[in-house]
Amino acid sequence: YHTMALFVRSLSSSPPSHGPRLRPSLLRSRCRFMSSGSSRWNVRVSSSSSSPSPSPSSSSSSSSSLESVVSSLKWDEKGMLVAIAQDADTGMILMQAFANKDAVMNTVTSRKATWYSRSRDKLWIKGEESGNFIEVTSVYADCDGDSVIYLGKPRGPSCHTGAQTCYYTQLDGPDGAIANNQVKEHKKDFAHTHEHGAGAAPTATPTLLALQRTIADRANEPVVEGTKPSWTRRLLSNHELLCSKVREEADELCQALEKNEGVERATSEFGDVLYHSLVLLHAAGGDVNDALATLRARFNQSGVEEKASRK
Amino acid sequence: YHTMALFVRSLSSSPPSHGPRLRPSLLRSRCRFMSSGSSRWNVRVSSSSSSPSPSPSSSSSSSSSLESVVSSLKWDEKGMLVAIAQDADTGMILMQAFANKDAVMNTVTSRKATWYSRSRDKLWIKGEESGNFIEVTSVYADCDGDSVIYLGKPRGPSCHTGAQTCYYTQLDGPDGAIANNQVKEHKKDFAHTHEHGAGAAPTATPTLLALQRTIADRANEPVVEGTKPSWTRRLLSNHELLCSKVREEADELCQALEKNEGVERATSEFGDVLYHSLVLLHAAGGDVNDALATLRARFNQSGVEEKASRK
Repeated sequence: YHTMALFVRSLSSSPPSHGPRLRPSLLRSRCRFMSSGSSRWNVRVSSSSSSPSPSPSSSSSSSSSLESVVSSLKWDEKGMLVAIAQDADTGMILMQAFANKDAVMNTVTSRKATWYSRSRDKLWIKGEESGNFIEVTSVYADCDGDSVIYLGKPRGPSCHTGAQTCYYTQLDGPDGAIANNQVKEHKKDFAHTHEHGAGAAPTATPTLLALQRTIADRANEPVVEGTKPSWTRRLLSNHELLCSKVREEADELCQALEKNEGVERATSEFGDVLYHSLVLLHAAGGDVNDALATLRARFNQSGVEEKASRK
Repeated sequence: YHTMALFVRSLSSSPPSHGPRLRPSLLRSRCRFMSSGSSRWNVRVSSSSSSPSPSPSSSSSSSSSLESVVSSLKWDEKGMLVAIAQDADTGMILMQAFANKDAVMNTVTSRKATWYSRSRDKLWIKGEESGNFIEVTSVYADCDGDSVIYLGKPRGPSCHTGAQTCYYTQLDGPDGAIANNQVKEHKKDFAHTHEHGAGAAPTATPTLLALQRTIADRANEPVVEGTKPSWTRRLLSNHELLCSKVREEADELCQALEKNEGVERATSEFGDVLYHSLVLLHAAGGDVNDALATLRARFNQSGVEEKASRK
């Protein structure tokens, strides 16, 4: 056990009660590609980007500031922009739809990912019917202000099919990849996400999640007489071997630093530690999504708080 | 050292020389939200999704299949859809722009992320001028076929400003968050990505990358007389302490399994191992991006190949 004084402001999710405080002067266009010629994103309310920030307690006009900043985004001729929902921990892109100004405003103030439904001509708060909200911790705009990311955590499947992400159809997969893309309805199992690994569809997932899915697949692979099981399968069926490998790889990672074996070796050993730790996490019934969320939560705590919270 | 028989088909990047093989019959609309009423995404060329896949060697018509599948995506009235480029390893969303059919086709066949520039009225291969291509390993469509993800690796900054991602403007940050969003031109430093951590702008990054950035920030924090340095800073300035913690946390993770301490404890200990290993990786000059890329590369190798490749 230890203390981790990781306090990092950039990852903190502003509590909705405080409201966001924004500086429109700093929103300016820096991307040239696909510029529509609109200058709305180029607004500069003040000329200096290094002017002192107001103190946290001095921003009584936070909602009008928010409105001003959101208004300065680059809305298309229909008053829309692209809003992408992304899992704050795993990086998985959950879904994408279009948002108008009210939708972005509502997302920031309510912390529920919100889009605009043109067919129903109204705001669409994801989860308002299903309960599967996406709880947004931060909102980022891209360099030319015509696209935003809702970074947050899904409370349930993000796709109405029951899939975690809407992006489960690989266009360029090998034969059969799309055939395997049958999305199982697994809404009730969503909380225990490690189980979506086994037999689940390949989706657009970054490496760590993809590796976890592979490990889950290995856990369920049929053992064929006369063939050697995969290394992962062997580890999962022999916890003594698994633990000895986790300790061994941690030791080798340390030696890479202690013996100054070079960055390439350290990188490789880090990968070994990560992989074997993931296998152990699976064996213990855990999920990397939860582990990352736990880590992120610690960022916003002082060391003392973090230590106290673990007692 | 060990063998990792992780061979996983879903993560493999099809070599461009083989070309993609696609099954249009399996692309069908399953998302109801934001449906434009178009039925193009509902095309079913054959009726069964469980029909046998052609063998890898039998698909001489792969490019026409690709064209058929891409054509069946749900193109808007301008012939465009949303195409999002995402780092395959870290999950960082790099940029977003619109793509027409030729752009998606070109992305799959050339493996270079491609969009369509309406202002220049032509395909826009990201990097064609700067050399900063995004090398695409797989392409995913969302459930209703009006949005795709280009999952790949950027060979340089993805934003023309020199930032890794275009999403560096936080709309809902605490005071000063946007002020800190000054993007440094760090094109020449891009290869050594760990250094973008120190003092770099907060961007829309998933937890693992954000944690690495925090660690880099801690490495550069000023030490104030009479105040206790952060835990991370202490670890970075004392490699003996750091290594003893990595070994200790690996041991505690193992004990969580050996002593059956429960999933919550295992999850927390996994987080401890991950954090301390990241600090060590930083101390050794490494970067989690490279570590994840190394891990992903191993997925596509048999255990024997993997072992041989490390000799």
